[in-house]
Amino acid sequence: MVALYGSVHLSFVPEFSPGLEGVVAAETAVSEVDGANGRLIYRGGYLIEDLAPVANFEETAYLLWNGQLPNKIALETLRRQMTIARRLSDSARGAMSALDAQTDAMDTLRTTISAQGATKTLTTPSLEEAIALTAVVPTIVAAAHRRAKGIEVIAAREDLGHAANLLWMLEGKEPSAERVHWLDTYLVLLADHGLNASTFTARVIASTGSDLTSCVVGAIGALKGPAHGGAMYAARTMLDKIGHVDNVEPWMQKAHEEHRRFAGFGHRVYRTYDPRAKILRELAQTAAPDLYRLAARTEEVALKILHEAHPERPNATNVDFWASVVLTGVAIPKELFTCVFATSRVAGWTAHVLESLADLRIIRPASLWKGPQPGIKPLPLADR
Amino acid sequence: MVALYGSVHLSFVPEFSPGLEGVVAAETAVSEVDGANGRLIYRGGYLIEDLAPVANFEETAYLLWNGQLPNKIALETLRRQMTIARRLSDSARGAMSALDAQTDAMDTLRTTISAQGATKTLTTPSLEEAIALTAVVPTIVAAAHRRAKGIEVIAAREDLGHAANLLWMLEGKEPSAERVHWLDTYLVLLADHGLNASTFTARVIASTGSDLTSCVVGAIGALKGPAHGGAMYAARTMLDKIGHVDNVEPWMQKAHEEHRRFAGFGHRVYRTYDPRAKILRELAQTAAPDLYRLAARTEEVALKILHEAHPERPNATNVDFWASVVLTGVAIPKELFTCVFATSRVAGWTAHVLESLADLRIIRPASLWKGPQPGIKPLPLADR
Repeated sequence: MVALYGSVHLSFVPEFSPGLEGVVAAETAVSEVDGANGRLIYRGGYLIEDLAPVANFEETAYLLWNGQLPNKIALETLRRQMTIARRLSDSARGAMSALDAQTDAMDTLRTTISAQGATKTLTTPSLEEAIALTAVVPTIVAAAHRRAKGIEVIAAREDLGHAANLLWMLEGKEPSAERVHWLDTYLVLLADHGLNASTFTARVIASTGSDLTSCVVGAIGALKGPAHGGAMYAARTMLDKIGHVDNVEPWMQKAHEEHRRFAGFGHRVYRTYDPRAKILRELAQTAAPDLYRLAARTEEVALKILHEAHPERPNATNVDFWASVVLTGVAIPKELFTCVFATSRVAGWTAHVLESLADLRIIRPASLWKGPQPGIKPLPLADR
Repeated sequence: MVALYGSVHLSFVPEFSPGLEGVVAAETAVSEVDGANGRLIYRGGYLIEDLAPVANFEETAYLLWNGQLPNKIALETLRRQMTIARRLSDSARGAMSALDAQTDAMDTLRTTISAQGATKTLTTPSLEEAIALTAVVPTIVAAAHRRAKGIEVIAAREDLGHAANLLWMLEGKEPSAERVHWLDTYLVLLADHGLNASTFTARVIASTGSDLTSCVVGAIGALKGPAHGGAMYAARTMLDKIGHVDNVEPWMQKAHEEHRRFAGFGHRVYRTYDPRAKILRELAQTAAPDLYRLAARTEEVALKILHEAHPERPNATNVDFWASVVLTGVAIPKELFTCVFATSRVAGWTAHVLESLADLRIIRPASLWKGPQPGIKPLPLADR
């Protein structure tokens, strides 16, 4: 049987996998999600639970870009490159100022990064650009926040690292080592995760030979969606609505009866407890003890209800659930949760694009036609 | 055999198809590329060669969005909506002004559309937004061009259609009906083309529940690549370098010996002559008779060389080759070719996103791990 669809050298109807579930779209050595065993492996073969205690965000980004962890000299060089790149260009500053101060922070990030990375002629993605784009994200996120509050924007400090600088630029006071550590751990854990939708977006854009800024701008747009980066905000909002440990059971039961989805539960890939969620859950006990108790009870009830309804489904807590608790402990305003996710994942996006350059081939899938077969001629306007 | 890769409920190693060639990523009724038979079918079942003579760009966009061609009243309503939406917001105007006037026009388009579509809260993609984003593209493209030339930006005219307005805003004088017709035909022919890389980008971004502006901004980034929308510029540049009919044979032979690719030849999907290229080739005879002669000779020599080198390959002329000749006849500066492509394809991007809303599922493919298996523990910084 020869099917009518957008790629013709196959003579059978290929199976259609909605959402490309299980379809291999790339080979990669940047990260591997071993969903069956609940393992996340970063470049070099490191398990996330081994890496998180020994590396901060800068070291992790270096690993994803270069394939090995930096020594002290390499790390110092990277820190210096990032310090310089934290400054916004005049174009980027101007583009941001043109936006309404109450603009969605992700829209501000998308527009300002697009201006920051705009060039006169097409550039091939480079490590230098990856460092620059990664370095500047917290500057934009913090500035967007302070503009929305109507307070003066603060410049980065040369003596602070990446996580600390985000908090410094948000708040204008030096953050405690504890809060920096919690945020840094989050940034390490979320830096890459296989072919998630935003990383895949970056790779599709790169596949046409486009520039790195275009890849990152597209990825920001994908991350914004509530089924992706927007999930932390949804999880925190759910916890806010529940409000108190005593309300958990009735609130969740009612939500379940009304067929509302529980924010922060379910994941395409993991069939066991997400290894990142496990680390963040532990961190949450110290970072946000009150919210932790509410969240732990919510998780217990959610998993019970979900298991009773669908015993066959592996409805595990996802990373967004516990991440929202940890970021609350760091005192990140929830309107910025998705932007803080972008602060981390931009390392992965850029690492994937750089990796893909070695064997660039345009990503152009086929489609199944569900429209009418041709035959009818269109009428001119006068006869319609 | 159980493989270690990013989706675990399959117990075999799925075949990896680089570039997702032949992999079905969506069902669609927006357009169908029947590569085997050299047919392009637009929504409703219309063959492109039947549609182009009876519909202009606005009618085609209406068809892609709504599933049927508009009657006079519906078309008048659409024209009025587009007239209003051609105006840039203060944010967009400010963002554009912040960019260096010599910025790549596609980077200006990416940044300015991002500002134009920025909102305070997440919006679900709507037909109204699709119309607005489509309408405003020529305004940005023309303004980018005039800024680069250091001349005053011109506002759209209410009495002109979409193609005519682009020329009016570029040049500040009323274009001839002939030139409007050539440009309009180009805009109709390029408005959609199955799951090409930029349209696929838009669908991946939409699949997370993100907004329409994010989808369009991502798609602009993908279109920018030389393997996609950038191909027209490359084709025209090649013709410029050849320069004269007498140079064709030696120039192409030399390029072939030096393993340089011929711009404007080869396509992932078509195995016969691209039906759009056929229409544009005919148009080119009138639109740009001199360049037509050079291009026709170049095509003849290119196909001969390519066929001798790879008789098994269907090396057909692609749409970008003849489109570059027609747009030259319209007197579009070649730095704007990719932007003019975006002016057309934004109709398809937005139509695909609106279609995908009916059954939204996050697009998250699997990957094959080519890194080391986990086992080694990472060393802390002090020991590296």
